[in-house]
Amino acid sequence: MKKALSILFLLLSFISSGFAQNQATWIWYPGDFEIWLGNNMQNRRTERTTFLPPFWKLDSHYNLIDFHKDFDLTQAEDVALFVEGKYNVKVDGKAFPGYPKRITVPAGKHKVSLKVFCQDRVPAIYVRGKNVVSDDTWLVTFEDKEWIDETGKASDQSGTTWLKAGSWNFNDPQLPPSKFRLNTKALSAVKTDKQKGSVFLDFGKETFGFIKLHGLSGKGNINIYYGESPEEARATATCETTDFLQIDQTQKRDSTMKLTKAFRYVNVQFDGSVVMDSVSMLYEFLPVADRGSFRCNDEQINRIYDVATYTLHLNTREFFIDGIKRDRWIWSGDAAQSYLMNYYLLFDSPSVTRTMLALRGKEPVTSHINTIMDYTLYWFISIYDYYQYTGDKAFIQQFYPRMQSLMDYCLDRRNKNGLLEGLAGDWVFIDWADGLSKKGEVSFEQLLFARSLETMALCANIVNDTPNATKYNQLAADVKTKLFSTYWSDSKHALVHSRVDGVTTDNVTRYANMFAIFFNYLDDAKKQAVKQYVLLNPNVPKITTPYMRFYELEALCALGEQSYVTKEMKDYWGGMLNLGATSFWEEYNPTKTGAEHYAMYGRPFGKSLCHAWGASPIYLLGKYYLGVKPTAPAYATYLIEPQLGGLQWIDGKVPTPDGDVSVYCSTKEIKVTGAAGTGTLRFKSKTKPVCKQGEVRPVSNGTYELTVEKGKSYVVSYKL
Amino acid sequence: MKKALSILFLLLSFISSGFAQNQATWIWYPGDFEIWLGNNMQNRRTERTTFLPPFWKLDSHYNLIDFHKDFDLTQAEDVALFVEGKYNVKVDGKAFPGYPKRITVPAGKHKVSLKVFCQDRVPAIYVRGKNVVSDDTWLVTFEDKEWIDETGKASDQSGTTWLKAGSWNFNDPQLPPSKFRLNTKALSAVKTDKQKGSVFLDFGKETFGFIKLHGLSGKGNINIYYGESPEEARATATCETTDFLQIDQTQKRDSTMKLTKAFRYVNVQFDGSVVMDSVSMLYEFLPVADRGSFRCNDEQINRIYDVATYTLHLNTREFFIDGIKRDRWIWSGDAAQSYLMNYYLLFDSPSVTRTMLALRGKEPVTSHINTIMDYTLYWFISIYDYYQYTGDKAFIQQFYPRMQSLMDYCLDRRNKNGLLEGLAGDWVFIDWADGLSKKGEVSFEQLLFARSLETMALCANIVNDTPNATKYNQLAADVKTKLFSTYWSDSKHALVHSRVDGVTTDNVTRYANMFAIFFNYLDDAKKQAVKQYVLLNPNVPKITTPYMRFYELEALCALGEQSYVTKEMKDYWGGMLNLGATSFWEEYNPTKTGAEHYAMYGRPFGKSLCHAWGASPIYLLGKYYLGVKPTAPAYATYLIEPQLGGLQWIDGKVPTPDGDVSVYCSTKEIKVTGAAGTGTLRFKSKTKPVCKQGEVRPVSNGTYELTVEKGKSYVVSYKL
Repeated sequence: MKKALSILFLLLSFISSGFAQNQATWIWYPGDFEIWLGNNMQNRRTERTTFLPPFWKLDSHYNLIDFHKDFDLTQAEDVALFVEGKYNVKVDGKAFPGYPKRITVPAGKHKVSLKVFCQDRVPAIYVRGKNVVSDDTWLVTFEDKEWIDETGKASDQSGTTWLKAGSWNFNDPQLPPSKFRLNTKALSAVKTDKQKGSVFLDFGKETFGFIKLHGLSGKGNINIYYGESPEEARATATCETTDFLQIDQTQKRDSTMKLTKAFRYVNVQFDGSVVMDSVSMLYEFLPVADRGSFRCNDEQINRIYDVATYTLHLNTREFFIDGIKRDRWIWSGDAAQSYLMNYYLLFDSPSVTRTMLALRGKEPVTSHINTIMDYTLYWFISIYDYYQYTGDKAFIQQFYPRMQSLMDYCLDRRNKNGLLEGLAGDWVFIDWADGLSKKGEVSFEQLLFARSLETMALCANIVNDTPNATKYNQLAADVKTKLFSTYWSDSKHALVHSRVDGVTTDNVTRYANMFAIFFNYLDDAKKQAVKQYVLLNPNVPKITTPYMRFYELEALCALGEQSYVTKEMKDYWGGMLNLGATSFWEEYNPTKTGAEHYAMYGRPFGKSLCHAWGASPIYLLGKYYLGVKPTAPAYATYLIEPQLGGLQWIDGKVPTPDGDVSVYCSTKEIKVTGAAGTGTLRFKSKTKPVCKQGEVRPVSNGTYELTVEKGKSYVVSYKL
Repeated sequence: MKKALSILFLLLSFISSGFAQNQATWIWYPGDFEIWLGNNMQNRRTERTTFLPPFWKLDSHYNLIDFHKDFDLTQAEDVALFVEGKYNVKVDGKAFPGYPKRITVPAGKHKVSLKVFCQDRVPAIYVRGKNVVSDDTWLVTFEDKEWIDETGKASDQSGTTWLKAGSWNFNDPQLPPSKFRLNTKALSAVKTDKQKGSVFLDFGKETFGFIKLHGLSGKGNINIYYGESPEEARATATCETTDFLQIDQTQKRDSTMKLTKAFRYVNVQFDGSVVMDSVSMLYEFLPVADRGSFRCNDEQINRIYDVATYTLHLNTREFFIDGIKRDRWIWSGDAAQSYLMNYYLLFDSPSVTRTMLALRGKEPVTSHINTIMDYTLYWFISIYDYYQYTGDKAFIQQFYPRMQSLMDYCLDRRNKNGLLEGLAGDWVFIDWADGLSKKGEVSFEQLLFARSLETMALCANIVNDTPNATKYNQLAADVKTKLFSTYWSDSKHALVHSRVDGVTTDNVTRYANMFAIFFNYLDDAKKQAVKQYVLLNPNVPKITTPYMRFYELEALCALGEQSYVTKEMKDYWGGMLNLGATSFWEEYNPTKTGAEHYAMYGRPFGKSLCHAWGASPIYLLGKYYLGVKPTAPAYATYLIEPQLGGLQWIDGKVPTPDGDVSVYCSTKEIKVTGAAGTGTLRFKSKTKPVCKQGEVRPVSNGTYELTVEKGKSYVVSYKL
């Protein structure tokens, strides 16, 4: 028995040492792949056949990078090298000749370093030995300052800044970062109408990918018109996206379009002797699984949730993008909402950081992100959220300097009152809304500015930059004080919209007021005032974009108005479903009819019918119905406050960095399973609740709490 | 007669309108081609077969550029488009479909714009109509901020910064900037020693280019060892550059090496069944003609001048580089001297600005240029010189912001005394000299800093930035005051070398003292003191690099010590010639013997035997013997002060932006021809000089002056 055990032990050691080979992965200068990929994606936009690149500065990756790591090896090992770019490789500062594909690193303590130049792609390496493997523990710099004097003595490099390498999931040496492609899958149309010289296809729902023409032959033109609506696909002169081909081939061949398109309907027209067997598509997607879920007794709400998750998936690609048809650019304000939805559906942090880094770009800051003042501020606020949900300190440590320089840009653009006001070249966006004033000092911008400064203070503390933490906290407090002294109107019971040329306007809009609620900037009296005089006041201009509906409904949820929100959700998102939507739109105005719905930007089909900001029910249902939200970074502590919002039962999951929180709630029973750290279930009950798995504590006013431990399930009987 | 005249007039109009077609040229964002080309060139360095890239940050071109120009056409015209990158083209903001190669621009006032994305090369365009042609009057930006609101209304772009396009001489649409190559010309060896398995070639003098193996066939290895000396070419294990090939071919083929090398001697070794007919080279060069010249009665000086001009030509390539064998990097301190020599030989401003822009790179500044403190300061001083010689205000207007940000970097690195002191990551270079202290506050660096601040004040005035002109002038004055209060020693009659930890050292070196002379920072008493106690004092450590010999001899010339300099030139540069030099060296120490001369950086052949800084006689002979120098930008006014320096006669030309100044001077006669603006010939004579072509004015102490007008020649009889 003893012998058998030791053999088993040996066997296990062998296996374990086999597995001890660390996973090598492609690495690069952090943020650089993201910038490079962002450039590639954003420069794929076309309007019909015209190239339409972004109107802001695009940065480049650093083209010359030094990678190194110190190793202590018990025995010499062979190491394979894969490199994107022109490179050298050194052990302890001594270079190997040429461009070796394999080196031997001797036993003992050794520094392995590679230096790589690459202009068209991101300098990247994949190093695979047994212990000598490339991963995000390697250090990288874009200026090693390693000079030698006339005697051959090397410099001390004390002025060199090293960061940890960036990586993602490129674990195959044959698939370097530059070869990254999204996944594809063949799909067929659900309905095909073939006529002489044309095929009209309906793929059954909004989709995205490459159209494929099968068995194509003959001589002539093939014009493909794409539509999110049948009207658009038929409007050959004004549809937003097209493909025009000419062929002259006798042999039948399949032909796949080069650029992806967004569509439900495809109108293929051809002339001459062109014939084809059939038309299908390659659906293109980022393979990322749902972790969150939501179901309830109301089938319309369930359908809204499903269409929202599909909408989010379609817009979760190389990056979180705004809409799949037109822009395919990365917009910070749009992405800020995708991040929040992501925390309740995918919990895919790489998609968040990829997007944040592509948006931030490089030094120097020469304009607001996307040129939009509010979009810069959302970038900061998104970091606040990201840290709260994921607890990822490493991201903040690596990119704190980029946060600082972006904040310096904002601080440099304050006016004499210390407030932000659009200067030449600044786009003050707020929302797409007719007649919305962007002039002067807009209260909404100051509110986002205050929260951004609070984010900077938080991050300064994380990197132990105490003097700046104090500075940012003070600046945040100043802006908050000015926000209320400047804009709060007792007679309007609200923050007014703006101050222009020193005169505070009378105009009340929803924007600053609703954000002030969920930023928790209002005392209870002001909250109730805002609810009554702004949020529930039909005379305050209505919001027509799902973008701002997101925040409006969040504010109402934060005030406990879930029942009202349920109705609004059914009206607004349900309204789109009633019009046949299979994904949610950039803008929805119920007073419009027919193809009017598709117009925007002065173009008949300018509107995107699949816009990420339309997917907010994912967030609202997860955070304010299932009621799960972190109260400390990475869900070390969190709340579960289920709210039925007029529904009979709700059931779902919310992902955390360590497992999913499950919640079921009806008017009589709550069932929860904990994840991550320590949860607190909080609920109201008219009777004393009963729970066998834990102790329910009365708090006040018929409110009760139950501590929820990781991995444990609890069933509570109560009475709503 | 009248009729004939009007026909002639018509004919001339026709010809002139035919010629009125403007020259189109490739254009780009200013400075970007220079950065891109600099990256390419500097990343071609290898040490034997190992890739050896720079150790400082390399920047990238902007990858997304908007180009535009407004035209007013009397009739519509066809315009051909050539573009490097993915692009769109618009007339008055309306885009053409796809990627057109020809467009028609209608008659009337129209804005033509192109937007181009390119990551691996510099976005560039070549537009060729009759009037619609691309040239450096087009405006460019890397962020057009041209957004539209939800109604389709375009933004006002008031925050967009437009610069004038960059260009060089790419006038052929088929040869875009990315295809730029230097010229080549076939050359043969002057001596070939063919043995079994080897060929040893001597090309007669230092040269540069691609080795070509003719009629190569067989199977085996070919190892090529390059040498600036025969010793190096024979030292197969330690020569600095090599090429290793393997072939297996039965057909005879010519094979040209991929990378250029510097050499005089080439040692080709081969094994197996390898055979070849012969070995030759393709000499690679920038085609730029000599405009300056110098001849005198001393044949050794003439030979020095010729070898100096050859040395400068070899190092004047894509950029002014330091040396052709080893680095092939761009070094600001080395280039600063090449610029000065250039003004007396080539007067090729594009080579100056190309080099300055590649050195400066992009924002943000993260280290000194080449990491070297003095090299940053030389960059500023070079602008001072460039403006003085060329009067090119446009360059300063375009790049003043980059000058400001680099100066901000310096100002941010001042210590508590307001002086520059090496911080972590700063290389304080000064010179290659044994035991030279770089510690603490070095006087030499403060001196360069003061001159740099003066340059900034000059440039601030040129761009009408009056507040900063005042600021920079004040800062310059402060540093100058501190320079003398801190370092001037009455007992040493000199500026001492440094202050370390608050204690001024006793050490006197030549550096700050010699620069103080030709910067004109010393009063006459101090000048004479420095001459006696430093420059002509053998106890002050000698300078052994041609780099600092340049400035040492310039200081002596500025003090009128040309006769001494003539002797030094013959000793030092003549010393190299006596050792067989065919180009001038990185360092020359007459106390060394044999192959000792070739060692540096701890390597037996580490020294470069063709270093640009060795070519300074071009500058000294032009500026201080022919005595021609501008006293106002672009030679609007200038001096001609010929000095024989012990020679019997001198004869030569000095180029200006508008023609060459000719000077002949013997002990009895001076002959000059003016160029550019207004010259003043100044000379001493023991008798009253006679000139038929102009009026000689006595000035003082036997000094006379004559006004020299553009294009006019003057002969003066005088007595030295």
